[in-house]
Amino acid sequence: MSPESRVDVIEMAPRDGLQNEATLLSTEDKVELVERAVRAGARRIEVTSFANPKRVPQMADADELMAAVPRHEGVSYAGLVMNRRGLDRALAAGVDEVDVVVVATDTFCRRNQGVDTAEMVAAATGIVAEARAAGMFTTITVGAAFGCPFEGEVSPARLRDVLDRVADAGADELSLADTIGVAVPTDVAARFALARDVVGDDVALRVHLHDTRHTGVANAVAAVQAGVTRLDASIGGAGGCPFAPNATGNVATEDLVYLFDRMGVATGLDLDEVTDAAGWLEGRLDKHLPGALLRAGGFPAGARGPLSR
Amino acid sequence: MSPESRVDVIEMAPRDGLQNEATLLSTEDKVELVERAVRAGARRIEVTSFANPKRVPQMADADELMAAVPRHEGVSYAGLVMNRRGLDRALAAGVDEVDVVVVATDTFCRRNQGVDTAEMVAAATGIVAEARAAGMFTTITVGAAFGCPFEGEVSPARLRDVLDRVADAGADELSLADTIGVAVPTDVAARFALARDVVGDDVALRVHLHDTRHTGVANAVAAVQAGVTRLDASIGGAGGCPFAPNATGNVATEDLVYLFDRMGVATGLDLDEVTDAAGWLEGRLDKHLPGALLRAGGFPAGARGPLSR
Repeated sequence: MSPESRVDVIEMAPRDGLQNEATLLSTEDKVELVERAVRAGARRIEVTSFANPKRVPQMADADELMAAVPRHEGVSYAGLVMNRRGLDRALAAGVDEVDVVVVATDTFCRRNQGVDTAEMVAAATGIVAEARAAGMFTTITVGAAFGCPFEGEVSPARLRDVLDRVADAGADELSLADTIGVAVPTDVAARFALARDVVGDDVALRVHLHDTRHTGVANAVAAVQAGVTRLDASIGGAGGCPFAPNATGNVATEDLVYLFDRMGVATGLDLDEVTDAAGWLEGRLDKHLPGALLRAGGFPAGARGPLSR
Repeated sequence: MSPESRVDVIEMAPRDGLQNEATLLSTEDKVELVERAVRAGARRIEVTSFANPKRVPQMADADELMAAVPRHEGVSYAGLVMNRRGLDRALAAGVDEVDVVVVATDTFCRRNQGVDTAEMVAAATGIVAEARAAGMFTTITVGAAFGCPFEGEVSPARLRDVLDRVADAGADELSLADTIGVAVPTDVAARFALARDVVGDDVALRVHLHDTRHTGVANAVAAVQAGVTRLDASIGGAGGCPFAPNATGNVATEDLVYLFDRMGVATGLDLDEVTDAAGWLEGRLDKHLPGALLRAGGFPAGARGPLSR
């Protein structure tokens, strides 16, 4: 990783960070969270999920939220979409990107989305085609790409089979998600090599990491070493998954910013602003968030945090 | 890292894990902690510190503890030593190894040990000579080798200068400590390359990581990639440093065991036993410990933890 390196950190806190929280944030607070992310330098933000409000009540205000968030030149807002009805809402709400999830195992896919993997690939293919026709940027995120809470190991052969089918959907970007935080760096290297082999060089690759077993930062390094420069993260490390037992948050945005700052890899994000946002979010959620920088402070002193006080 | 790889995880919980805790563990509990580490497969354990009891009251029972811990074939007990008086106690107590700390910055060295770095190198040289003459295995740990809480950045030139002087002491092993948890993987690669350059191939290298900024696991991977196969860790991630503000615990033993198990790198440690020990230690300290595996459970289900229940 040379000093010229640059990665894009995609902010997931408003969606993945909040969808599993006991505390429901107001739409006004969500707007502030998005605005804080923008102020910190985020250029891609997953703002909400157009899921069934009965299943994901935290995201019930998706349409109002998208109507309320200020738009900024160069900032792209994404919405998670599970089905055609979600896509219709996303189109009406004016998101710039749609992120369609296909879970790699049938059991988890059914619990998450009510259909098995093959059925979800078919649905995603239609969603991507329609979204692209409407001028949107499209991502397919393969959930549980490193392991499943219900089926256990997800073999490379299974992942290849899913990716083969997903590749035909023609999305602009393919994300591999370690939804339950079980991956280690060798997995990241092997599965992104596999993904590159399947989709070739025309599709951008992206990684979605959870820090459930403290491998999130190591996996981020492995991803960048494997040439993956688009990484999801969540302010404060907020989050989890409503349908995956014991899932904890995405790797914290501020932890990645500290890491990459010190490695000489540009993120475009300001550590002070991200850490401030994490502190603010802790207050709104009234709970301890797992990101490290809020408590540890940057280094050397001068970056925000206890060491500089 | 091929499946044949093997690393040695040196258990620090009884010393680095406890020396900064508000709760003083009884000698009996410390014996149990050591016994749990042995049962989990630990073969090198830093049992205590022969420090001034007025400065480190948690270690005041060093002599009694060493007299009380059962000895096991193939298990080596180390004591941290700060000065000649500490060495005399360590010799009398019958430890197998002494670990002598030289802090890389003068300010921190004075606060930690009452002398500056050059004075401590001279003291360490005498301690190592005497310990080796007594048949002990000797380690010099260079504290704050990646950054200092008081002086900030520790330049590679400063580290080289300290290592040049330390190398002449002739210890069996040289450890670089990220005492305040500021290192990132590129630092680990660069500073161990520097250390190897200074000491040549005859001295074993070892790394001491703290997970203060969630880079501990990533740094462990970087260390192994750099050829360093001796890694300190602490059950539960317990620990800190009484003289370094905001330092948090060593990287958790169980987090490293999970990482290496899944990477196909042998540690000789049993994840279930280590995680059980972390749970037990949480109970004795009556506080949440930062290790991830205790809460997340192993993967796939079958390893201990919530997923397997």
